[in-house]
Amino acid sequence: MSAQIRRLSSTDSGFVATLDALLAFEGSTDAAIELAVADILQTVRRDGDAAVVEYTRRFDHLDAPDMAALELPKSELAAALAGLGAEQRNALELAAGRVRSYHERQVQESWRYTDESPGMDGTRLGQKITPLDRVGLYVPGGRACYPSSVLMNAVPAKVAGVGELIMVVPTPHGQKNQLVLAAAAITGVDRVFTIGGAQAVAALAYGTATIPQVDKIVGPGNAYVAAAKRRVFGTVGIDMVAGPSEVLIISDGSGNPDWVAMDLFAQAEHDELAQSILLCTDEAFIGRVEESITRLLPEMPRRETIATSLKNRGALILVKDLDEACEIANRIAPEHLELSLADPYQWVDKIRHAGAIFIGHYSVEALGDYCAGPNHVLPTMRSARFSSPLGVYDFQKRTSLIDISEAGAQTLGRIASVLAHGEGLQAHARSAEMRLKR
Amino acid sequence: MSAQIRRLSSTDSGFVATLDALLAFEGSTDAAIELAVADILQTVRRDGDAAVVEYTRRFDHLDAPDMAALELPKSELAAALAGLGAEQRNALELAAGRVRSYHERQVQESWRYTDESPGMDGTRLGQKITPLDRVGLYVPGGRACYPSSVLMNAVPAKVAGVGELIMVVPTPHGQKNQLVLAAAAITGVDRVFTIGGAQAVAALAYGTATIPQVDKIVGPGNAYVAAAKRRVFGTVGIDMVAGPSEVLIISDGSGNPDWVAMDLFAQAEHDELAQSILLCTDEAFIGRVEESITRLLPEMPRRETIATSLKNRGALILVKDLDEACEIANRIAPEHLELSLADPYQWVDKIRHAGAIFIGHYSVEALGDYCAGPNHVLPTMRSARFSSPLGVYDFQKRTSLIDISEAGAQTLGRIASVLAHGEGLQAHARSAEMRLKR
Repeated sequence: MSAQIRRLSSTDSGFVATLDALLAFEGSTDAAIELAVADILQTVRRDGDAAVVEYTRRFDHLDAPDMAALELPKSELAAALAGLGAEQRNALELAAGRVRSYHERQVQESWRYTDESPGMDGTRLGQKITPLDRVGLYVPGGRACYPSSVLMNAVPAKVAGVGELIMVVPTPHGQKNQLVLAAAAITGVDRVFTIGGAQAVAALAYGTATIPQVDKIVGPGNAYVAAAKRRVFGTVGIDMVAGPSEVLIISDGSGNPDWVAMDLFAQAEHDELAQSILLCTDEAFIGRVEESITRLLPEMPRRETIATSLKNRGALILVKDLDEACEIANRIAPEHLELSLADPYQWVDKIRHAGAIFIGHYSVEALGDYCAGPNHVLPTMRSARFSSPLGVYDFQKRTSLIDISEAGAQTLGRIASVLAHGEGLQAHARSAEMRLKR
Repeated sequence: MSAQIRRLSSTDSGFVATLDALLAFEGSTDAAIELAVADILQTVRRDGDAAVVEYTRRFDHLDAPDMAALELPKSELAAALAGLGAEQRNALELAAGRVRSYHERQVQESWRYTDESPGMDGTRLGQKITPLDRVGLYVPGGRACYPSSVLMNAVPAKVAGVGELIMVVPTPHGQKNQLVLAAAAITGVDRVFTIGGAQAVAALAYGTATIPQVDKIVGPGNAYVAAAKRRVFGTVGIDMVAGPSEVLIISDGSGNPDWVAMDLFAQAEHDELAQSILLCTDEAFIGRVEESITRLLPEMPRRETIATSLKNRGALILVKDLDEACEIANRIAPEHLELSLADPYQWVDKIRHAGAIFIGHYSVEALGDYCAGPNHVLPTMRSARFSSPLGVYDFQKRTSLIDISEAGAQTLGRIASVLAHGEGLQAHARSAEMRLKR
């Protein structure tokens, strides 16, 4: 297993085009998956519990007499937590506590004010914040079944005040992940069903006799789950549909090349499509990072995945200076950005687009993935240009409050009447004019 | 033209099923539209300006030598504003000012704090807020071409600090709406192109030689525009895809039946799919509203649209009490909710799901549509259960800030290492462990 990763320089001819090609990733929509998912959604919507039980038998090889048998009692979650070793239990609880503490700062509060402008006497305006009533949390089974993902999705929902949090997790052949169940216990998930795939998304979106309809579905999943979420969007809310994970490291050569190499590995080990890119002002340091990659790779249990990811999607890029590095970073709008710099703070303000910025040599992404506090669900595929980390705000929504006094209705009614007539909406105009005193 | 609107009572057998059937609305996806839109998107992506110019010639009957000829100079926007009568200009400027003043309260600020928990010495966490770089604003041509819609979309973008706001508005046969151009001038729209349809969405999403790529596209449009927005989502952000407009009025019989009837009309005049529902505790008052409907309808210029909307989608519903009315309102999660009540405030807190709440007899929706201050772009089709009015927050995004001290990396590294090994991600574990002092 030899390490190969392309080396580029921002002064290469055609550099921008090369970079764009490297970043390009189109989540292909597979016609067969779309068809299968459309059918599953329709069947679950029509047949409810019976359809979900049947799909679970077929796809997860799990035979249950009815839907109730697929619900895990709370005692089983508590037992999973009690069964953990002290070290794991401690780590999970400390991580959950830190994530909670950070997210509590994201809680938004309702506000109201009295409109003091002329002619508005007593008019009050505001914005009311309410949590979602009920949220579904999808947790994948198999290889990508991560307890940290339960923490990162469940904690902000609970901090927001969501009334009921329903987790679904497929357990093929009945195999349960005890860490995931323990994480559900720690975060106060209300109900857990051992179902997955498009059938679980359908059950949450439409409701069945046993599974109540939710208002939003969050959490990662495979191509079937992603297609199902896209299709039920509108009936329920969904979180973003995530692409491959990415890290961009900006270095001035002041760091430890082994640390940089391992940080690139940590991203690349997720899967072969993950993307690890280094921007560095110091050519000699890039060479040392390359040496570290070559030396450290054979030690890694997931070396094959890492090697493929680095070869196909990775790059070590020489840049002129840190200003140029920040410009390129803004173009990439990376999910994770590490500022591996001696004096990082002057550069933080130049970054406009990133999911999370890890500042300085000790701020390594892996700490953010588990326990620094901020969320690890972050915008991928350049969507940090327009979207945000998962947060408490994704589980709260706003309602405008409009309380217009009789005096205010006189002032506003005249404006609204002019504008409504201008738009040819006479009933709008009349409903405002009726409130005018003669 | 006779007025027909169904009368229901919450004590009718099968009431809930009847209500659900009345609310049901599925935005049908038309296969022919999907196919046409996919083709237009692909062509514009490949051929850029030339494709947009050609589609504009074909669909809008507007012949331009090149894309530059389809851009309106700023002087033309200023001339449109200068050409308005004083009454219209005043009304537009007052409305824009009020919308701006309300939305300024929605601006979110970055925050940082030092983590004071044990072992985290000097670690700082935070959340950085940045505006979007560039936003596209779609404004429909023809009948639904509303200057108020320009205000409601452009003002929050500008308040958020969006760098460049690019408006597209089709002008079939070259016919321009002067009020819309004046609204663009007032709100400081940066560039305006007279293009529309899926080709305008494609130009904004992918960029062309003349039209720069945007980060998000907002604004209402027809079925082609909606389909195009759904397809480019991910490449750029989009706002919600709106369904038919709705009003729910809760009355205790204390209001004026003519006002209630006209408020129902104002919603129904939008289009035949618009929905107007009254919940009232007073049977005699419902009768008086019905009389008002019959008497006032013939006076309305848009009476045919109103009559069809009320007949197919409207209802006057007798409820037992106001508690039940609030329960039904939460089930409906209406876009607009009017509390036409003598003592409205005690009921505001019982409403969990609504786009906007209009409190008391003088708070009529038409004032909110134009000039009360809050946004008139609101969640439809029950999506107020999980989404919010358009606001400044739709044009800002968040970046997590993580600055872990050397001491903090010791504390967090041990936790992360345990959890990463638990998930089988050894490079994650190693990248944390490398920061540990021996």
